[in-house]
Amino acid sequence: MARYPGISLSVTRRMPRYYRFLAELMANGVERISSREFAELTGLTASQIRQDLNCFGGFGQQGYGYNVAALHTEIGRILSLDKRLPTILIGAGNLGLAVGNHMKFDEQGFQLIGIFDSNPQVVGQEIQGIRVRSINEIQSFCLENRPVIAILCIPRSAAAELSGDLVGWGVKGFWNFSHYDLSVAHGDQIVVENVHLGDSLMTLSFRVNELIDQ
Amino acid sequence: MARYPGISLSVTRRMPRYYRFLAELMANGVERISSREFAELTGLTASQIRQDLNCFGGFGQQGYGYNVAALHTEIGRILSLDKRLPTILIGAGNLGLAVGNHMKFDEQGFQLIGIFDSNPQVVGQEIQGIRVRSINEIQSFCLENRPVIAILCIPRSAAAELSGDLVGWGVKGFWNFSHYDLSVAHGDQIVVENVHLGDSLMTLSFRVNELIDQ
Repeated sequence: MARYPGISLSVTRRMPRYYRFLAELMANGVERISSREFAELTGLTASQIRQDLNCFGGFGQQGYGYNVAALHTEIGRILSLDKRLPTILIGAGNLGLAVGNHMKFDEQGFQLIGIFDSNPQVVGQEIQGIRVRSINEIQSFCLENRPVIAILCIPRSAAAELSGDLVGWGVKGFWNFSHYDLSVAHGDQIVVENVHLGDSLMTLSFRVNELIDQ
Repeated sequence: MARYPGISLSVTRRMPRYYRFLAELMANGVERISSREFAELTGLTASQIRQDLNCFGGFGQQGYGYNVAALHTEIGRILSLDKRLPTILIGAGNLGLAVGNHMKFDEQGFQLIGIFDSNPQVVGQEIQGIRVRSINEIQSFCLENRPVIAILCIPRSAAAELSGDLVGWGVKGFWNFSHYDLSVAHGDQIVVENVHLGDSLMTLSFRVNELIDQ
């Protein structure tokens, strides 16, 4: 049974943002914050924030606001950031390297246990203390170590080829930097977070041209 | 005067997605598509797509649907992807390298004209044929070359320090991978697209734990 059945994706997507801003408040020594102040900080409305948090039980007190540290802990728990889901990274090119080196997986619910690449010049190198393995070893590795998450930093065609096998070997979640549409192929069996950097760049193009043309 | 005043950010953000799917249809030789089929492909509703495109004039024909190549061209024009806004990349660590090497700037409205880093070991290296310059040269470079866009692949503190200067030197748009909140400091003078990879990862954590717990 899901812990929070029926939570919408848009509510889900705002929770990491709350978590991030709460961490920042803690770092600045702020102990409590009103929903109005928190709304200003995050660029949302106070009623939106209250509504979102009410989906998980609500954590504010009338006339007090939110206890920053307590809410931070609570949201971390909701997001399951204390879990260490076994995770593999596929593709150790520039993007895979950046993702592997840049992300704090163990603070965000994941444990990186394997890295794979098809390029012999990359195989054998170390990223975060993990040796890059040949893609030829991926099946035996998955059957033995049962990763739940795969991060795809590979081209579309390679993602199309591999994803079915990965689902078959028990992978349930994908952090997908390729442009292959995993959800269409595997539907409700898996969860996919797509990162479309190109979409973000094109959005910037539109918005900045609108600004300049003013 | 903005070309499309009052277009909401959520409509704006769906346009690159349409553009991406249309490119894919073209690559597969598809010449026209009904709004119902296009809705299925993109995971939206037909009425949503019609509404979005109507903000820009609407491009479908009753009983015909959309001409794939024509709509692709039209959306590219709306997004100003044919512009080549002078762009600088600040930070050539793993993330900056990945962004610099991975993105097709010239297909997405930008021209990369300068790369900067503070690390002497990185300065002098080449990315996409552009030599990485010392961060100490950034002021003279900006005053001479007038970049309109800055890509920030630097830590929060460095972003906080630099952003005011960049705005002063005429930068109008930021593609922001740092966690510094530029909008708060500079408001309506600039456009910011934030990429919060950590938020995406935390969302994946929540969603996959919900799936596993079922």
